[in-house]
Amino acid sequence: MSDESAIIAANAAFYAAFAAGDFTALAVLWADGDGISCIHPGWPPIVGRAAVIGSWRDILSNPARPQIVCAEPHAIIDRDHGHVVCIELVDGVALAAANHFARVGSAWRMIHHQSSPIAQLATSADGSDGHSLH
Amino acid sequence: MSDESAIIAANAAFYAAFAAGDFTALAVLWADGDGISCIHPGWPPIVGRAAVIGSWRDILSNPARPQIVCAEPHAIIDRDHGHVVCIELVDGVALAAANHFARVGSAWRMIHHQSSPIAQLATSADGSDGHSLH
Repeated sequence: MSDESAIIAANAAFYAAFAAGDFTALAVLWADGDGISCIHPGWPPIVGRAAVIGSWRDILSNPARPQIVCAEPHAIIDRDHGHVVCIELVDGVALAAANHFARVGSAWRMIHHQSSPIAQLATSADGSDGHSLH
Repeated sequence: MSDESAIIAANAAFYAAFAAGDFTALAVLWADGDGISCIHPGWPPIVGRAAVIGSWRDILSNPARPQIVCAEPHAIIDRDHGHVVCIELVDGVALAAANHFARVGSAWRMIHHQSSPIAQLATSADGSDGHSLH
């Protein structure tokens, strides 16, 4: 399997674990140790295994958690690290996400996840789109 | 200089270039080639040097661009890659950001930037905070 296929598969496994509510499967996808971080939508950054994995435990334990579908994954790989940018459809609303992975032995393990809302695109009078300027 | 100091310095140079409106300085901080990506607040992911660097050119050319101050940078380094999570104060409003770097020769060059709004924290009736559940 190419690195690109492997990292796309690891990314898919992350969303499959979320969809299944499988905390154990999700936790093992993340790298061991405290060199991991996460920025959930609307959250400040959280760092370290206890905080990051704990946040996912809390989210997965919520029966009202949303359904998330990953679309348009695109992998970028450089040596022993890679990341996948994608669209998350969260109960039908589009978010922009990046999932970063490090090679650990023969596996790709997550080291950072960030997901953030995509603004409603609206064509303004001057023809520009609705993107904010940072 | 330790890797941690170097990556924190590269992160600071990114915000200094933005504050100065120095497009050339900002562009050279990014890695060459198309293995770079960016998710601006409210934007979908953009990939490749033309799209990413072009977006920064557009942002820096806007005289009404906001002031951004980086606070609480925290570096995580693993071999030839590292990332800094931090708070961006954008005209006084807090965003959560991650800046990812790859070692290129003796320098750390940016390969991904993502910045996203932090929700207003409000204590709800059940005592939980205002974080969204993903």
